[in-house]
Amino acid sequence: MPRPFALTPGEPAGIGPDLCLLLSRQAQPHVLVAVASRALLANRAAQLGLTIELHEVDPQALPQQPAAAGQLYVWDTPLAEPAVAGQLNPANASYVLNTLQRAGQGCLDGLFAGMITAPVHKGVINEAGIPFSGHTELLAELTHTEQVVMMLATRGLRVALVTTHLPLREVADAITGERLQRVTRILHADLHSKFGIAQPRILVCGLNPHAGEGGHLGREEIDIIAPALEQLRGEGMQLIGPLPADTLFTPKHLEQADAVLAMYHDQGLPVLKYKGFGAAVNVTLGLPIIRTSVDHGTALDLAGSGRIDCGSLQVALETAYQMAAASGR
Amino acid sequence: MPRPFALTPGEPAGIGPDLCLLLSRQAQPHVLVAVASRALLANRAAQLGLTIELHEVDPQALPQQPAAAGQLYVWDTPLAEPAVAGQLNPANASYVLNTLQRAGQGCLDGLFAGMITAPVHKGVINEAGIPFSGHTELLAELTHTEQVVMMLATRGLRVALVTTHLPLREVADAITGERLQRVTRILHADLHSKFGIAQPRILVCGLNPHAGEGGHLGREEIDIIAPALEQLRGEGMQLIGPLPADTLFTPKHLEQADAVLAMYHDQGLPVLKYKGFGAAVNVTLGLPIIRTSVDHGTALDLAGSGRIDCGSLQVALETAYQMAAASGR
Repeated sequence: MPRPFALTPGEPAGIGPDLCLLLSRQAQPHVLVAVASRALLANRAAQLGLTIELHEVDPQALPQQPAAAGQLYVWDTPLAEPAVAGQLNPANASYVLNTLQRAGQGCLDGLFAGMITAPVHKGVINEAGIPFSGHTELLAELTHTEQVVMMLATRGLRVALVTTHLPLREVADAITGERLQRVTRILHADLHSKFGIAQPRILVCGLNPHAGEGGHLGREEIDIIAPALEQLRGEGMQLIGPLPADTLFTPKHLEQADAVLAMYHDQGLPVLKYKGFGAAVNVTLGLPIIRTSVDHGTALDLAGSGRIDCGSLQVALETAYQMAAASGR
Repeated sequence: MPRPFALTPGEPAGIGPDLCLLLSRQAQPHVLVAVASRALLANRAAQLGLTIELHEVDPQALPQQPAAAGQLYVWDTPLAEPAVAGQLNPANASYVLNTLQRAGQGCLDGLFAGMITAPVHKGVINEAGIPFSGHTELLAELTHTEQVVMMLATRGLRVALVTTHLPLREVADAITGERLQRVTRILHADLHSKFGIAQPRILVCGLNPHAGEGGHLGREEIDIIAPALEQLRGEGMQLIGPLPADTLFTPKHLEQADAVLAMYHDQGLPVLKYKGFGAAVNVTLGLPIIRTSVDHGTALDLAGSGRIDCGSLQVALETAYQMAAASGR
């Protein structure tokens, strides 16, 4: 049995608390601890008409057995002000960060095998005067990690990105041999150490349409990508590409690989989210801890409504469990 | 019953002739005329061990009834030299162009309701000293069309492109309001006139990740795309967007639209080819004629082997038939 897992419901006015409660109707295979306000969860459960027993836990003496169906372990982390579904309140920004720090530090300290995060709202945290650009950056800082890699996964497909939230016109210049190698090394290392893949095989997209078509549609494949990959192959990595992105996502290629490395956001994620609709998960690679996340936002308009789907959170949990098992945590 | 359709097998050393022969094992619902060398088809049929009756037709007196299973109508167009499967021969470049000109002119003259093209090999035609950049450009010139739009389609999804074969670093500057409006007008007009959609609804992708996220990840959506779309909406077009490309290809959006307009090649085509694997078709919009094409290449190594799939050609035919019916040709 692995150690317990931490679950952070994120923004208290969003659907994160709802997701955690809806999920608790079924038993989990492992100990799962919501790092959240007990009062928030109790109120939201009442609003949703759900009967979930909330068991407060002591982080120094976490439970050994998974909670039964209809129960949820909670590491109580108080709100500053009561949360209202759908209404952002900057007063609770520090609460959100507290939950992330407790969960992240708990992973570093070995209390938790990994953490699973529901969505936060960047805007309201910044409004509260706290500079915050996202979960990933906060966890990188907490764990003193220089470079992380964003990977989205769904059953049967993993897509990691060389560049992420960058205007399209800046992408080509951001694809340097150094960055490509740094990202590929992290992807390769984490597929091995956190996913238990002995010899990871990675499909690499070109930057240009048709992967540049021999230089006719751009030279980055020839000048930058191919040489960078060749060097990594010399270190023993199995890298296939650069391949045209429009024909890479077909069974012939996908069947022979463990992950796809896309050069930029909209090259890789449309297929992933099309295939994994409602059941995709965001995994932060490169951290010394295991962190998975849902792939959707706070959906403020749906908080408290009960009209939400737990598919993405379910896959985020499954993925964290698999990663913990593969890395012996 | 619509007029006959022209089928061009393209490069004689590639799989185009094989596809036409394999297809002829089944009866077609309409008259289909291969514009090709009869000798080539006879030889390739022998190589494949297929018994297909080749009926030579007179273009001035095309048949009225579809051929039966195991038969193929041929408008004989002689090769310069016998073709060998898998071996490119520049001597036959002008043959390939002849077949395209006959089919294209036949569409203009009203002999044919539309044309369906198998792949050509650009390289060998250029090697023969004939400047040639593709089917689309040749047909645009033949029909005096200034702007064409590339659209790929599979059952249940159509994706048109604002820019096509352009290095990624040139894409952002190529997205002008003028170009976007020109392409959107063609897409809208052809969905109406060639696909019979009374009020076409078009989903439009942003250029940047998250469609620019309110300007934080690029301003093209705010400065260029949104104003251009707003103006077209004023003319009565139903345009939804600009939307983030990574969440656009999900049922919630796709169910309410007839086509997706992507800003560039690798934003739109990976999903299309993932969904439509082996059964996607390339449609050239903006021409005064109907032209559909397979979405794959000449596959020289498979010519004569019989180990090929007719799925894409089948969809190219179905699409041409539907377009002809919708436009009363």
